[in-house]
Amino acid sequence: MSVLDSEIVATLAAIVGAGNVLTGDDLQGYEQDWRRRAQGKALCVVRPGSTEEVARVVQACAAARVSLVPQGGNTGLVAGSVPDASGTQVVLSLRRMAAVRAIDPQNMTITVEAGFILQRLQETADQAGFLFPLSLGAEGSCTIGGNLATNAGGTQVVRYGNARDLCLGLEVVTAQGEVWDGLSGLRKDNTGYDLRDLYVGSEGTLGVITAATLRLYPKPAAMLTAWAAVPSLEDACSLLGMAHKHLGASLTGFEVMNQFALGLVDKHYPHLRVPMWQETAWCVLIELSDAESEAHARGLFEGMLEQAFEQGLVADAIIAENLRQAHDLWHIRESITLAQVEEGFNVKHDVSIPISLIPEFVREADAALAAAFEGIRFVNFGHLGDGNLHYNIQAPAGIDAKAFVAQHEERISAIVYDTVSKYRGSISAEHGIGELKLHKLPQHKSPTALALMRTIKGALDPHNLLNPGRVLSA
Amino acid sequence: MSVLDSEIVATLAAIVGAGNVLTGDDLQGYEQDWRRRAQGKALCVVRPGSTEEVARVVQACAAARVSLVPQGGNTGLVAGSVPDASGTQVVLSLRRMAAVRAIDPQNMTITVEAGFILQRLQETADQAGFLFPLSLGAEGSCTIGGNLATNAGGTQVVRYGNARDLCLGLEVVTAQGEVWDGLSGLRKDNTGYDLRDLYVGSEGTLGVITAATLRLYPKPAAMLTAWAAVPSLEDACSLLGMAHKHLGASLTGFEVMNQFALGLVDKHYPHLRVPMWQETAWCVLIELSDAESEAHARGLFEGMLEQAFEQGLVADAIIAENLRQAHDLWHIRESITLAQVEEGFNVKHDVSIPISLIPEFVREADAALAAAFEGIRFVNFGHLGDGNLHYNIQAPAGIDAKAFVAQHEERISAIVYDTVSKYRGSISAEHGIGELKLHKLPQHKSPTALALMRTIKGALDPHNLLNPGRVLSA
Repeated sequence: MSVLDSEIVATLAAIVGAGNVLTGDDLQGYEQDWRRRAQGKALCVVRPGSTEEVARVVQACAAARVSLVPQGGNTGLVAGSVPDASGTQVVLSLRRMAAVRAIDPQNMTITVEAGFILQRLQETADQAGFLFPLSLGAEGSCTIGGNLATNAGGTQVVRYGNARDLCLGLEVVTAQGEVWDGLSGLRKDNTGYDLRDLYVGSEGTLGVITAATLRLYPKPAAMLTAWAAVPSLEDACSLLGMAHKHLGASLTGFEVMNQFALGLVDKHYPHLRVPMWQETAWCVLIELSDAESEAHARGLFEGMLEQAFEQGLVADAIIAENLRQAHDLWHIRESITLAQVEEGFNVKHDVSIPISLIPEFVREADAALAAAFEGIRFVNFGHLGDGNLHYNIQAPAGIDAKAFVAQHEERISAIVYDTVSKYRGSISAEHGIGELKLHKLPQHKSPTALALMRTIKGALDPHNLLNPGRVLSA
Repeated sequence: MSVLDSEIVATLAAIVGAGNVLTGDDLQGYEQDWRRRAQGKALCVVRPGSTEEVARVVQACAAARVSLVPQGGNTGLVAGSVPDASGTQVVLSLRRMAAVRAIDPQNMTITVEAGFILQRLQETADQAGFLFPLSLGAEGSCTIGGNLATNAGGTQVVRYGNARDLCLGLEVVTAQGEVWDGLSGLRKDNTGYDLRDLYVGSEGTLGVITAATLRLYPKPAAMLTAWAAVPSLEDACSLLGMAHKHLGASLTGFEVMNQFALGLVDKHYPHLRVPMWQETAWCVLIELSDAESEAHARGLFEGMLEQAFEQGLVADAIIAENLRQAHDLWHIRESITLAQVEEGFNVKHDVSIPISLIPEFVREADAALAAAFEGIRFVNFGHLGDGNLHYNIQAPAGIDAKAFVAQHEERISAIVYDTVSKYRGSISAEHGIGELKLHKLPQHKSPTALALMRTIKGALDPHNLLNPGRVLSA
């Protein structure tokens, strides 16, 4: 470690305590991303315990022109929260900042620090008699700060929106190390530019989120889950429209899964007993949250599914009889990703398309890929209610999948993303840009938008010290 | 008109056609705001007919360093869309851009140009089988571009959010005259900073909104309105919590009105037959939108109101028997503002407070004002579901109200806003800053937030040509 490096480490230790500055070789959990797509090397990891300490850390790094990589649970999927390989970046871990600052039942808000684990947030809300609806695979270890920095999505977005929509106020440390106390519990505030939404989703490149005031919702009296076999993706989209009409805001989840994806779950986890997957090309999972009662919810659901049968939108359907069954159905949906891993190397995409164009998009992308790569297999599933598909590609059966992916990933993704752009979609619906999609963005985002983003980044972080090289190239 | 002025007028005429550049003395509708609080003088009014023309107008003005004041329906309440008195500013009226660009029923979106009138947008959505839920007093003449530029609120925010929440994508002409085509119909898109939400609510100071893609919602099967007498503001807040719990997302409106406000309506419009206003200190208006049926809605409403009676939260209540009665109840609520005008000059505030703190805020503000101004009268009403009060002050009875307001408005507002800030509220919940609240903002907004706003403004509009002196002082 150079003298200058030692100096900054000592300075940081003076701010947060020596025990909260980690150096050396044992930083794997901070330096490698969850998907193992990126391996960096940090100058050190600093773990401040308060907003004041975060501010002083940022000030010290700014003075020394050392760049910072803010990090929460480090569960992101685009390598946005690990340091680069230079050994010169400081990882700013927010994990020690995990206090509940306030719960306001009458205002239906909770204020927590950035390092608070999402699942604990759900539990804390539940204990207070409310629902905090953000829910996603990594909820046991991701933090709310990371969720907000990446505008996380998940399974209930169709009703409650993304992380951004659940946030009323933020506390942020700016690139200059100033604290912006925007911890508002207000649902209406038109006193200037929307700084909150600018920081949300900026992936730590504009400021460091240290705390947030979040919306709570009334707990539904009952939640029911249905599973239905639908003949086509067009039918799935029509069924979604019917669900909006019949269930109104009680519709809290609408997932779609193609036959091959469910077949993989059946193959690798036969004990899960995937229902109906051989019956039709697609299945959907629908979740209904009811303010009244389970009986009322069941009546609503049955009425809708009956009508869907009559119209031929649904070939078969079940409604979970109890929470256990509902859990099992969701577990099948959530097992697709793991079944893909069992099946072998694959190429993942997290795209969104206007819902009306999804069937056409899938047809065109499927055809283009099948023509380019004989035997290629399509694992297609996702949050249809949000127009968000995880459009993944499995190598042809019986070949060296790792070699196939290594050789063809770039071209496969290019075909997918070009088709996405043709249908005015997004190449990153909920995962963000980070480092992994950084070089793809310029081909799929308007130059004007990118120029505006660069202008904002340059103005708020002129020395490019906050998570440089993420979202925008350095 | 100077030679330079004549040149710019000629340049603009070459872009939009001579008939769409208005000069002279007949520009009152463009130069004076709706509340007649500001009277400006424009160099000219330019009325482009397309995004391309807007871009060229902005380019021409930028080249000549002439500042622009974007204007929609000019119905704002804070003098944010009229020119200053210098005679050097160009009013950029978007009213001619009023096309529906697309309706996508399956994606539940509509794309319209900025000059489209809000009420026509509601009607167009209705004809397509959907609800566009933004609703406010000026809907017959305000434009969606103005609604977005000011992040308008209204009566259904408790369920559907503000204008920002209804917007998926924007088309914007930047301060440099470039067109950003962000007309996305996507519900999830994490490919960079949230430019959309930065332009929404920026009051024309960062760019000119020329079109927007907006969310549509399923039309409810039934809407019911209830009116209830509640003993105290605390009870009103508790009733709101009960409504959230019992009605879930079916709760689409929750308005509160104090006795004096309703008394004014009764006094000046006795034919409206205000119900229950003498029974308790407060009344509330609750709107329920049901995806099922009127019978179901009525059952839900009755069940909730019964429980509210039992708990003493409600002293008396009626549910409108039909649409006509519902309309009449809403009309009473909407007549408060006009009844205030009949009663005489008054001082208006549009504030928000965390809902849990509203009773305490009102008690403290009332007491401070009553102590300072003997006989002062409180017209207090608003969107309690959003924590948004129109906390207005009527001069003491029997005195010269105009003189009273002229003499004391500043001090009255200072007391109100200081109390708002003490309770972490906002001095502009839904009306914006414009010019009228410009000089109050620095005392009630964090200096860090203001500095961030200035940095963003300076970066995106370095020559301060877009609506200068609004939101931020020049």
